[in-house]
This record gives sequence, structure tokens and C-alpha cells, in this order.
Amino acid sequence: MLGLVLNTHQQWLCRQLGNLGYGVHRQVAVSDDGAAIQEAVREALTRADLVITTGGLGPTSDDLTRDLIAQLLDRKLIEDAGILTKIEKFFAERKRPMPASTKVQALVPEGAIVLPNQNGTAPGLAIAVKPNPFRRGGSPGWLVMLPGPPRELRPMFAEQVVPLLQKHFPQETAFVCRTLKTTGLGESVVQEKIAGPLQPLTDAGLVIGYCARIGEVDVRLVASGQRAQPIIIEAEQIIRGIIGKSIFGVDEDELEQVIIRRLTERKETLSLAESCTGGHIANRLTNVPGASVVFLAGLVTYSNAAKMNLLGVRPETLAQHGAVSEATAREMAEGARQRNQTAYGIAVTGIAGPGGGTDAKPVGTVFIALATPQTTSVAHHVNRYDRETFKQVTSQQALELLRRTLLNELEKQPTT
Amino acid sequence: MLGLVLNTHQQWLCRQLGNLGYGVHRQVAVSDDGAAIQEAVREALTRADLVITTGGLGPTSDDLTRDLIAQLLDRKLIEDAGILTKIEKFFAERKRPMPASTKVQALVPEGAIVLPNQNGTAPGLAIAVKPNPFRRGGSPGWLVMLPGPPRELRPMFAEQVVPLLQKHFPQETAFVCRTLKTTGLGESVVQEKIAGPLQPLTDAGLVIGYCARIGEVDVRLVASGQRAQPIIIEAEQIIRGIIGKSIFGVDEDELEQVIIRRLTERKETLSLAESCTGGHIANRLTNVPGASVVFLAGLVTYSNAAKMNLLGVRPETLAQHGAVSEATAREMAEGARQRNQTAYGIAVTGIAGPGGGTDAKPVGTVFIALATPQTTSVAHHVNRYDRETFKQVTSQQALELLRRTLLNELEKQPTT
Repeated sequence: MLGLVLNTHQQWLCRQLGNLGYGVHRQVAVSDDGAAIQEAVREALTRADLVITTGGLGPTSDDLTRDLIAQLLDRKLIEDAGILTKIEKFFAERKRPMPASTKVQALVPEGAIVLPNQNGTAPGLAIAVKPNPFRRGGSPGWLVMLPGPPRELRPMFAEQVVPLLQKHFPQETAFVCRTLKTTGLGESVVQEKIAGPLQPLTDAGLVIGYCARIGEVDVRLVASGQRAQPIIIEAEQIIRGIIGKSIFGVDEDELEQVIIRRLTERKETLSLAESCTGGHIANRLTNVPGASVVFLAGLVTYSNAAKMNLLGVRPETLAQHGAVSEATAREMAEGARQRNQTAYGIAVTGIAGPGGGTDAKPVGTVFIALATPQTTSVAHHVNRYDRETFKQVTSQQALELLRRTLLNELEKQPTT
Repeated sequence: MLGLVLNTHQQWLCRQLGNLGYGVHRQVAVSDDGAAIQEAVREALTRADLVITTGGLGPTSDDLTRDLIAQLLDRKLIEDAGILTKIEKFFAERKRPMPASTKVQALVPEGAIVLPNQNGTAPGLAIAVKPNPFRRGGSPGWLVMLPGPPRELRPMFAEQVVPLLQKHFPQETAFVCRTLKTTGLGESVVQEKIAGPLQPLTDAGLVIGYCARIGEVDVRLVASGQRAQPIIIEAEQIIRGIIGKSIFGVDEDELEQVIIRRLTERKETLSLAESCTGGHIANRLTNVPGASVVFLAGLVTYSNAAKMNLLGVRPETLAQHGAVSEATAREMAEGARQRNQTAYGIAVTGIAGPGGGTDAKPVGTVFIALATPQTTSVAHHVNRYDRETFKQVTSQQALELLRRTLLNELEKQPTT
């Protein structure tokens, strides 16, 4: 509540719960204060069938949630030998001494289900509040406590909380959701193209959502009831008929995953030469498990010297056209491809800003080159954004250039 | 509440209010539903002297807040001619037709103060709720309604709401906040080391918070009242005396910024050779404006061929010790340093997983080498995490190795 931390849990949990067909009615944040936490949990239990808390399960003195909730529900805290062993193992594996304070994480409110933490020391806890003393009629509720760090909370929710919810709160009218991920078109352009043709399905219950992300627009299709599945399938067919080439994936797909998958299928390799994106593209590609099979090398050539020494860009090219130019991008891509002996070479050179722009080449100017076994093509964009957004948008354009090229090659080949 | 939007208002507003000395006690999000919005505002008015709402002031059918609050407070909505003229001007300047629905934004609850919107069409509104019908004793409250888009909300808050608050809620005791950012120590270790020595200050009103991030632990110091400033200064001195070397920065500092700053001050250059971090370190460094002055080149050498060709790693080294080894890391760092003619060369080689681990070298094994003008040192860690976290933790260790080395060199030099 001091504005030191951005709450990303709300969005993430709401998304997960919505995808499962559960409606989230309220999200509350309070300060690390015993009375405020207890009041918020008590109020939530008067209102909801399911209450999820995040954070406050760790080993330090401001981690109060476990104690406060045990007190609120009048349950004893009991040390769980299994958790303690796991915590000890966690430290032993990392060859680090285990501080005594860590032991509080092995305390479990009487009757709670322990949700083991695969990525940290604090387990989650789930408590059936039955009867619920805070709700009229005492109808039972569930209280789920999750650890604060996202990389602990997210797998724990997906692997352990979801099955628990599906068991205790079975959904009869499941939602069917399908997200089509597009790139290269603006949000309103996507809507203009597809909303009209989808009108009959919208009348039949299809709900369309548009979500503009950096360098992407997601089209979310949601339907419920008996005909949900055929409605979603028909909607996807209609959309693919109109903007199919701009759709790079579905649901959780990321463009870098699609690229690695396609190259792996084709047994082809890739190298990179990045200037203004500074390793952003390499970092995205190497986030994909198995990337090493097709992504052989990336060169972050910030200086002119590096462009010449590592990629063989000619001094005359730099002198005549400058580092940010179509000619330099072309030589960088071809240099990366040849020196690393890969099928494809992608190069990016531009001005990320905030400094470095001129009238002829304003901040945001970028040249993206793709060298293939057949030819080298260069795209020119002006991406006027802050530095980090610039890198994200540019890396999206570079990967999309490769995806489209692979797609076109596929189309040229006769189908057998 | 469907998880389609990330709430950044809470953090931003809490930070602004905290800096002015106002404590935020609760943040609530509800869905675009009339009853839920009215209930949340009513509850907030029972609790707080000041209630701020964001969003729901626009022209579309889901913008309900203005109407709902007028109804809740039993105030008539009156069309404000001044606002209407401004909205008409906004569209005329942009040569766009003005949709009829836009006119609702000129409606003002009786008695409300209009907060003109310099960056959009929906003005903000401030209402003195006097007497407050929802609060015991009817003590007066203020209700401030702000538009949802951050680029409209933020300047409106800074320019118009802050003066209003300072007039109606004069603050005598401002908060003082200071965040010390550490790396290399676990959360509970940090607490064990510093909590005891800080106890006298804690008794005097210092509040300490610990926040574990990936590869970092933030120590937040907060105090208020007349002695706030000296308490925070003394606390920082005590902490620096105990774990000073682990503190890489304060407040908004990121480790990559600190590295770029130090190297720029020292007029020294850096190159990278990344295997398992796949460009993550280069990407972090190049997020810092001005990085190009000191960061000359990064090589992402995923394949053995790239390690040999681009860095000069010897085939015998790879054959004898393997790509993930102290010897390979050493040759990579030295190769990067020599080939790019930089003062420092950092190299990382390891097994990010999920595949590729062996008994001798399990997933998470990583060797980090730093070549300096004097010597080359290699650190060995086992970072057992998911792939992306592995990259983040490892990049943190690599940058910290450089930061510590620079720090030690500084200490060796005689002070003049």
C-alpha cells in the first residue's frame, strides 16, 4: 500500500479463474497490518464461496497471514514434519545454511490441506470453512492461501488449486474459450475486418474480446452452453478466412515458440545479429526449451567495430550509409548467416532512443534484414516508443518477418 | 475482473499519496456492475476520509461510475456548459466528428468540483460528502473520481488533486521511505543479520519490510513523524555496516543500471559471451539508456561451433571438459574480452533445463567467468529453477560478480 510493488496477481488469477468459468467478484488489497488483514478476510468470507489470499506466508516478521487466519478461524497451528523435511532439503540442495526463522513455514492450521511448493519453501494452504461462521446460514466456504512470489504462486495454482476447485465447485456450464493471436494489425483494424462477418454467431451467443498487447492483438472467443464448441469452431474458421496470415498462434502460444517449432520441423537453423534490440530477440528465442537445436548463435553488435569484426560489415558501408541503414542491416544478416553457417540470418539495426535521433533518422527508426538461402530482404519501420517497448515491438516484427517467409515458402511448395 | 487488464493505478496512486504522507488503507476492484460499484463506494465512505475512484467516466455503455455515485449520494446530474464546449473543441481540433454519446461526460453531480481533463474528454470530479451519511457521527469525507486512462489520470492527480488534498487534509507528518536493494543473500538471512541491531529504531517507530524478488531482496525502511528522516538515515547506516557489500543500489535502482553507471564513470568497457542465458544479460544491459558507450558486444554462443569460431574456445577444452565447465567458461570470457578489446569480459555457460542434465552436471549447473585486465575468475552455482527464472538468477549472479570486482578494485586503490 506504499506503492512499492505492482500487483500482478489480480490479473493473472482473474484470467485463470475466468478461463475455468468462475466469476471473480472482488479484489482487495490491504497493508501488512494484522487487524486490516483479518478484517478483509472476514469480510470476504461473508461474501464469497471461495476466498484466495496471496502473500504473507514467508519466513520474515512481516509474513503474518498464516497466523492471522488461524486465529480468525480459531484453529491451532501444528508443525508439519513433512514440510519441515522439504524445507531442510531445499536448503541442503542449494548448499545454503537454513535460518531458524524458516521453520515457521512448516506450521499448518489444524485441518488445512497443504499445497506443496515446488519452487520455494512456503507451502500453500487450503481450508474448508465448514460451517462458515461469517456467512448467513453458515454455508461452507473455501479459503486458499498462496505464497506471494509469482513463480511459486502460478504453478501451485495451476497444478494444485485448479483440481481442488473443480472437485468442490464443479462448473456445469463450462465456458469454451479460444484465443487467436495476431500480429501486424491494429486492434481496431482487426475488429473492423471480423466483427461484421461474425455477427450471426454473436447473435447466437459468441462473445468476442479484443486485447491489444505490445506488437500483438489477441482475439478472444468465448461461448457457453450446449452449442459452445461448434460456435467457437465456426468463428475461428471465419476469422482465419479473413486474417489467417496474421494469426501466428492460439491460446498460450508465443511467437518465439512458433518460430522454434517451425524451424525444428524443417530441420533448419538460425543466427542473429542484433544492434538496437541488444539481445532481446536472442533472449526470447532461448526462453523456449530446445531452442539450442535450431538457434546456433546471436551477436549483439552495439559498436561499429563489433559489426565489422564479428559480422564482416564493410567499413565503406558504415561510412557511406551509417550503422542504421538498409545496407548495413543487409550485410549484418548475411554476415551472421555465413559466419554461423545457418539457413537464416536475422539482423536488426536502429535507434532505440531516447537519444541518437536525427531529422533523417528519427528515434524509432529501424531496419530489419532477413537473409535466407535464396535472398535477403530488408524491412523498414519507425517504432516510436520508450526504449523497452521499442525492443519488444521490433523483436516482434523481426520474428514475424521470418514466420511469414517460412509460411510463403511452404505455400510455394506443391503439396504431395 | 476477467484478467484482461493489469491494474497499475493502485501502485501509482499509493506511491504518490505515500510520498505526500497519506496512508492508503485499502484498495478494492469490482466488476462493471452497478450494485457492486455502489456497494464498494458506500463501504469505502464508511471507512475513509478520502475515497478515490478510477475509471467509468467515459462515453460508452460500460461507463457507469458518474451516474451510480450521483444516485448513491442523492445528487442531481446537471449538464455543465463549460465542459461541453471543451469536449466539442477536443473533437474539432482533431477534425473528428463528435459522437452523441460523448455528451454524457458533461454531466456533473450537483455541488461537485470539476477537474478539467487536459488529455482526454472525461473530466474528473471531486465531491465534499458533508455530512457523510455513511459514517458514524457523519464526519465529512471527500470522494474524488478520476478517469481510467493513466495518461489522463496521472497529470490530473498531480496538478489538481494534490492541491485539493493539501488544502483539505493538511499533513504534518510525512512518511519517509528508503529501499535498500540487496543481492546474493536470502530473505531470512538478511532479516537475521539486521533485525536485531535495528531493534532500538524499530521501537522508535521504524517499520522494516522485506521483499524477495528473483535474485534480489529489497529491504524497505519506512518512518513517519518528526524524527522520520534521522531514523531512516541511522537505519541505513546500521544496515550498510552489516551487509553493505550486498547492497547494490537504492529505491528504483536496477543492477544493470548500476553496472552501466560504474563502467561509464570508470570509462571502461564490457563484452559478453552468453551460452545458457541466451542474451538475457545483453538484453538487460541494453535496456539502460546510454549502454552503448560501455557495452560493446555480446555473443550468444549456443553451439560448440559458435564457441570455437566466435570466441576462440579450443576444441581440446570442449572435448576434455565439456561445454559446461570452468575451463570453457574461462576461455569464453577471455575470448570475448580479447576479440572485442574490452576491459572486462563476462561469460556464462550452464544447463538451463528442463533437459540436458546429468548426475555430474545436474540441470541448473552454471559456470560464470569474469576476465579482467589482471585475471580471470570463475564462479560455480547450481540454480535449480524453471528456465526463465534460471536465466534471471544467473544474469544477476554474473552482473553481481562484476559489481563486486569493481568494488574491490576501488577499495584497493589508495584514497587521495
